Amino acid sequence: MTKKVLKFGGTSVGTIERIQHVARIVKKEYEAGNQIITVVSAMSGKTNELINLSREISKNFSKRELDVLLSSGEQVTSSLLAGALIEMNIKAKTFLNWQIPILTEGDHNNSRIINSSTEKINKFLDQGVVVIPGFQGISKNGDITTIGRGGSDATAVAMAKIFNADSCEIYTDVDGVFSTDPNKIPVAKKIDQISYDEMLELSSLGAKVMQPSAVQTAMMYDVPLEVKSTFTDRRGTKIFDKQNIDYTKSVTGVAYSKDDAKITLIGVEDKPGVAANIFEPLNKVQINVDMVIQSVAANNKTTDITFTIKRGDLLKTLEILNNNKKIKYKNIIHNDKVAKVSIVGAGMVSTPGVTYKMFQGLAEINVNILAISTSEIKLSVIIKEENILNAVKKLHTIFDLD
Amino acid sequence: MTKKVLKFGGTSVGTIERIQHVARIVKKEYEAGNQIITVVSAMSGKTNELINLSREISKNFSKRELDVLLSSGEQVTSSLLAGALIEMNIKAKTFLNWQIPILTEGDHNNSRIINSSTEKINKFLDQGVVVIPGFQGISKNGDITTIGRGGSDATAVAMAKIFNADSCEIYTDVDGVFSTDPNKIPVAKKIDQISYDEMLELSSLGAKVMQPSAVQTAMMYDVPLEVKSTFTDRRGTKIFDKQNIDYTKSVTGVAYSKDDAKITLIGVEDKPGVAANIFEPLNKVQINVDMVIQSVAANNKTTDITFTIKRGDLLKTLEILNNNKKIKYKNIIHNDKVAKVSIVGAGMVSTPGVTYKMFQGLAEINVNILAISTSEIKLSVIIKEENILNAVKKLHTIFDLD
Repeated sequence: MTKKVLKFGGTSVGTIERIQHVARIVKKEYEAGNQIITVVSAMSGKTNELINLSREISKNFSKRELDVLLSSGEQVTSSLLAGALIEMNIKAKTFLNWQIPILTEGDHNNSRIINSSTEKINKFLDQGVVVIPGFQGISKNGDITTIGRGGSDATAVAMAKIFNADSCEIYTDVDGVFSTDPNKIPVAKKIDQISYDEMLELSSLGAKVMQPSAVQTAMMYDVPLEVKSTFTDRRGTKIFDKQNIDYTKSVTGVAYSKDDAKITLIGVEDKPGVAANIFEPLNKVQINVDMVIQSVAANNKTTDITFTIKRGDLLKTLEILNNNKKIKYKNIIHNDKVAKVSIVGAGMVSTPGVTYKMFQGLAEINVNILAISTSEIKLSVIIKEENILNAVKKLHTIFDLD
Repeated sequence: MTKKVLKFGGTSVGTIERIQHVARIVKKEYEAGNQIITVVSAMSGKTNELINLSREISKNFSKRELDVLLSSGEQVTSSLLAGALIEMNIKAKTFLNWQIPILTEGDHNNSRIINSSTEKINKFLDQGVVVIPGFQGISKNGDITTIGRGGSDATAVAMAKIFNADSCEIYTDVDGVFSTDPNKIPVAKKIDQISYDEMLELSSLGAKVMQPSAVQTAMMYDVPLEVKSTFTDRRGTKIFDKQNIDYTKSVTGVAYSKDDAKITLIGVEDKPGVAANIFEPLNKVQINVDMVIQSVAANNKTTDITFTIKRGDLLKTLEILNNNKKIKYKNIIHNDKVAKVSIVGAGMVSTPGVTYKMFQGLAEINVNILAISTSEIKLSVIIKEENILNAVKKLHTIFDLD
């Protein structure tokens, strides 16, 4: 018998009608003879509504109590979905995290699932559909903890791993993972299959179909994923180990992020610990540094360090750098109108000339490259923000993705 | 050290501002050196909102899942109140029912609290304020159960009993228990102290300040209650054993209910089991029968049975009576424009002439009595609905309650 974990996100369960639609999907899968564990998010907008209530009380609302508050959102969806299934004559039952229990460790608002008991659920799987609120768990102290925004994906992957499910299907409001943003680039194509690490590069670069840490967990435990739409019958995107993927193309997708800013420190003393001294105070105030490029200066005694951050963090970052007594540099320059475009593909490493082809393509449309960063399956460049859509279109075309 | 249970109803916690106001009340009581267990309802309107969601899915929504759904309402209030206390530098913690646990028995949607562990709460009471969601508990199967509308009162009384609290204070949106409805009869006066059974008669007769079954539990275990307003500093109404009340008046209050209907079966066969045959089918469809009066007919072979029901149940009741083959009667008459007025007082039994005084008073204002029913501490009459306010005013005056 096939065991499936089906996860439904916030927009998929955003109204009673949608919950009833989800119940029909679950019913169909169950009546096809599968054992079903369903994981649900809070109805769309609900989590923000609860967070706003807490903020009216305090900007620094107790993290323990925030977890008690937020976990109620998925509890509501679970009971409504189980009720909708029962109304369709399918036996179903909500298992709250403490009833299972699903164990977490780590801080409130940011914990990780480390294990789950299987006894009660395995017993019920032969009788009906299991419904579990995602995004939460129970600490070893017996407190409710939540596992961060988008954490229902992580719950689904953890359940798929712990219950040794044959598949983990992430139902969402898009058809799957696309070769680039289909809202901006109409020739974007749905990708049928993709490896975990390509998915990670694409998701962290803006294709927010799945929560990156959930993809990471799936990769670590080799849990096969499928991202598909709640609202159409189309095939989704299968995500699994790259060894099992037959690559015909060197590049799988083109990702981009906007609202970036670039800072360059010129003439930094070139000695051990300099980079740490620069980034440690930024890390302390949770400014996320994305690309970092260091090049050796001509005189061999100083170096230039370039990095990118979100545009909204620019002023704060400059202030911190200016007040940082630990580092010395000659000059600081910044550009707050930049963007990043990346080509991603597990086939890149085995295909010569991908780098050249990318640079050549950008040159043909007169796009100047401000910085470059590469990894095994990704090549990112920083360009002026005004060029971003043209660059994405060009790269999408020259790598045969249209 | 004094141990107090403080319960706050739905309107008292209906907005974030009100929750903050409640937190200030709790803080004051805590800083006065009391140990505090707080029990809260769902924010006003929330429970109905959740019930409506479930009804969109099914008119016959799973009772187990309804309990999962509804219990989230008090969970939200609890976390917000605990967060508001922490923001005011008071250590506070939500204890969800499964964390304590509070044990219930009986059906879903209608269970009873039978016990609660005390260990975790007693441990925390020395450190800070305990906040508990009312209206719910955990069955011996480990399911969430709820204890019926208004059940937060029952939670408060149960906690007061189990933790041997010195007082149980029910904070609500009125100043306390009144001698009659203050919204309709401006001369109504707040009652300073009242016995449990008078309170029961008054609350079940329309003074809906506290849930009757919670008052019953308090009476059974001699838990001293106080009903008071969240929104004023005025003294409330203390409710305790009548032995400790010094009665100066024979009548404590005048209650009334509207929207009643009266049915009389004339010429019913006078033999054992007749009343049961009449009322059993009504009970089956949950039609609540209030007063029942049986009088022996002149010929000693038949009897007349009069009873009252809610007006909305009249058509259904008549239909059931007409289709009931088990009983024989000559005629059936009904009046759908009646109301009930009652005088309540533990001092009545020791005061001669109360009955006469009531009938005399009603006669003076030309109010005809359609039926009479008495108990040890209550005297109820059925009258035409149009006379109800005049009757209540007159009785309030002649029993020195103005």
